[in-house]
Amino acid sequence: MEYEAINLRNKLGKFSEHWSPKIIAQMNNYHFKLAKLQGEFVWHAHQETDEVFIVLNGKLDILFRDGKVRLNEGEMFVVPKGVEHKPVAETECHIMLIEPAGTVNTGAVTSELTAANDVWI
Amino acid sequence: MEYEAINLRNKLGKFSEHWSPKIIAQMNNYHFKLAKLQGEFVWHAHQETDEVFIVLNGKLDILFRDGKVRLNEGEMFVVPKGVEHKPVAETECHIMLIEPAGTVNTGAVTSELTAANDVWI
Repeated sequence: MEYEAINLRNKLGKFSEHWSPKIIAQMNNYHFKLAKLQGEFVWHAHQETDEVFIVLNGKLDILFRDGKVRLNEGEMFVVPKGVEHKPVAETECHIMLIEPAGTVNTGAVTSELTAANDVWI
Repeated sequence: MEYEAINLRNKLGKFSEHWSPKIIAQMNNYHFKLAKLQGEFVWHAHQETDEVFIVLNGKLDILFRDGKVRLNEGEMFVVPKGVEHKPVAETECHIMLIEPAGTVNTGAVTSELTAANDVWI
């Protein structure tokens, strides 16, 4: 039989809202998620896990209390567990996130930007 | 301070050998690896873990005992743990692999294609 690949571009076409990660794959107990970002997110940290950001389209800044990283298309970064960070996208950018299933986008912070963490597309 | 992004294209420029994954990042106990593939790999399985393939450039076929999947650029697939598979690339392709640190590329099979699993670039 012919198995179906997961096409990132096709999956990105299935939603438009910002700051609302969608699950596209699971590896062991980790989720691969796509998200569209624009504007400023909230400061937060994930006390239990590292978090991987990969930029698929556009540019993303991740601010830290002691600096920042600029991610262009085709670049990635691992935010270490417990490290406060604030993603900022001046214009819309598309990312893949990799993190344990159940990770909440705003960490321990509850915000109007807190999103469901179990939506598959 | 300005933190440094991990640039996939730059990392791909740092090696040329086939079937020899290089580590570029670690998230918890998982490694993100880049590899260049050409030709046929060996049949093998990973009894302890799922394995993620993401095609960055080119095309990759992954054969299974009951079928196959064709991955084009920008496509991914999760090979479930325990499932025998054989990657085949007719022409050179570049991939990112995500799997637990210590995973051996040929699984339980020892082959001339068995590579070191601890090389960072």
